Amino acid sequence: MRYRESGVNIDKASEAKKAIARAVRVTWSENVLSEIGQFGGLYRLPQGYRDPVLVSSVDGVGTKVLVARRARRYDTVGRDLVNHCVNDILVQGAKPLFFLDYIASGELEAEVVGEIVKGLSAACAENGCALIGGETAEMPGLYQGSDFDLAGSIVGVVEREAIIDGSRIEPGDLVFALPSTGLHTNGYSLARRLLFEELGLSVGDRVEEFGCTVADELLKVHRSYLAPVQELQCLVAIKGLAHITGGGVVDNLPRILPAGCAAAIHTGSWPVLPVFRFMQTKGSVSDAEMYRVFNMGLGMLVVVGAVDERRVPSRLGELEVYRVGEIVKGDRTVGIV
Amino acid sequence: MRYRESGVNIDKASEAKKAIARAVRVTWSENVLSEIGQFGGLYRLPQGYRDPVLVSSVDGVGTKVLVARRARRYDTVGRDLVNHCVNDILVQGAKPLFFLDYIASGELEAEVVGEIVKGLSAACAENGCALIGGETAEMPGLYQGSDFDLAGSIVGVVEREAIIDGSRIEPGDLVFALPSTGLHTNGYSLARRLLFEELGLSVGDRVEEFGCTVADELLKVHRSYLAPVQELQCLVAIKGLAHITGGGVVDNLPRILPAGCAAAIHTGSWPVLPVFRFMQTKGSVSDAEMYRVFNMGLGMLVVVGAVDERRVPSRLGELEVYRVGEIVKGDRTVGIV
Repeated sequence: MRYRESGVNIDKASEAKKAIARAVRVTWSENVLSEIGQFGGLYRLPQGYRDPVLVSSVDGVGTKVLVARRARRYDTVGRDLVNHCVNDILVQGAKPLFFLDYIASGELEAEVVGEIVKGLSAACAENGCALIGGETAEMPGLYQGSDFDLAGSIVGVVEREAIIDGSRIEPGDLVFALPSTGLHTNGYSLARRLLFEELGLSVGDRVEEFGCTVADELLKVHRSYLAPVQELQCLVAIKGLAHITGGGVVDNLPRILPAGCAAAIHTGSWPVLPVFRFMQTKGSVSDAEMYRVFNMGLGMLVVVGAVDERRVPSRLGELEVYRVGEIVKGDRTVGIV
Repeated sequence: MRYRESGVNIDKASEAKKAIARAVRVTWSENVLSEIGQFGGLYRLPQGYRDPVLVSSVDGVGTKVLVARRARRYDTVGRDLVNHCVNDILVQGAKPLFFLDYIASGELEAEVVGEIVKGLSAACAENGCALIGGETAEMPGLYQGSDFDLAGSIVGVVEREAIIDGSRIEPGDLVFALPSTGLHTNGYSLARRLLFEELGLSVGDRVEEFGCTVADELLKVHRSYLAPVQELQCLVAIKGLAHITGGGVVDNLPRILPAGCAAAIHTGSWPVLPVFRFMQTKGSVSDAEMYRVFNMGLGMLVVVGAVDERRVPSRLGELEVYRVGEIVKGDRTVGIV
């Protein structure tokens, strides 16, 4: 009896590992001390920090993996995952150091793994983050055929006194927004049900309102806000950052609000992306539901003091900056008004 | 249309998060600066390192999750995962700092998530490692019903000059072994096929050779070698450590062998656990296959210089220490002789 008969192919896994090795090298800096194939990835902490605090996050891309699979396009989900994780530690002021990925599938396809890792590597390189390790697991019986899941973890660093935690937010502060590209990595179960099941659309169908195919729209890459936020940090004192993911603005903004503070977000102050309008109308989804499931076009919220109002530019790099609301007295809630 | 109808229950996820919050607190030291619910976990690097190198690894527990599900026993896989990761960075000399987990399921059950996190927390506490973050994802359509996958990442630290990398291994060195508890987290696809499909056993069946039920045997917890290896480090200069996981001793020991070195491992020098003998006999699996799929009772291999032969004790804590082989001239291969 051969292990291969039980659905696990160690030789194929070795092949996939070689392809990965080539792709990840481009992300390595002189701080990476490890070689591919070692048990753990080694990363030398950059010198010069007085009181370094490591900031770490783990995430997946939800059922966006099922859209990728349906469209047979595997080079975007890795970028989604890295950018998502970069944003999750950026909100506390951290700069990414390194990333590790976990790819699990019922049946490993070296080409698919290669494409996923290509996306991971590209995004890591863009964010100055080293891809120092990963696990590729073949798990027949849990995943159907070539179905796969993708998760990853990031570690970044911030000087202790530079941690951004929202604690200085107060009524009168202003809320600015950086736009999302689309769904980013949240709400895919609802979107899939709506677009594929209720409306019977296929990934290749062109939708007038989107100006592109369903696959193009749903696979738009989760944006990294590292560069624009770093640019903004040079101009103003950022009091708080909220990455708008699962739970939407309603659940995510309160995570950084101190006691005594609430937020008022004004509809109409930023462009809700067509994909959200389309899904809401076609699916008869309530406003409340939409705002809890989707980012609605708000990718990252930034809270600054009123004194900095004029110092926030109207653009950061290629991104428009929208003033979308303000902090008011209240009990850590968000009102969409 | 409600998000819940598409199979994602945000309220239930919030409940699960509260249970998690309670369990993970026990793992926190004064180095953990974050609060539950923040975007990233914050961990202050301990003071006193001259040139700290971070060592990180990500892993899953393979289809051991399917055995847990079949046996409806969810408090062991978290311990497997943490201990596995602790061992993966221990082999480079690192001490664990913090851990993050990823739990994905078709349908979140708060009790199941609670049990998994209980296991994660217990093992983190045992290994002096803080559980500072995690992602619990509900992904209908990818996972069937309450099927779940579990992965996690660990970050540890080692002084640069204390990194263990096998580079000083030379012919004449000795190979010692610390015993595994059983399959640990590898070979479950073959074991499941053999025990459940070929032999038609159920998780509750008692197997004479095991001295326990199939579930008891297959869910034995992956052992952490942190304490015994730290004890051994006080006695001898460890030249190399190999954690025996997927690929067995044949694939894992070469990962630390420098050019010009090979290893000879002597059968009969350690007790092959009954579960491996049973599976090999009943399934007519070849020796070569067994040694590539399973750890065969060897959990962690330690390479020390011949000069240290007498300094290696016969026991480390509760574990027997076996002398299982030696380093010979060769090309990074392992011979089972």
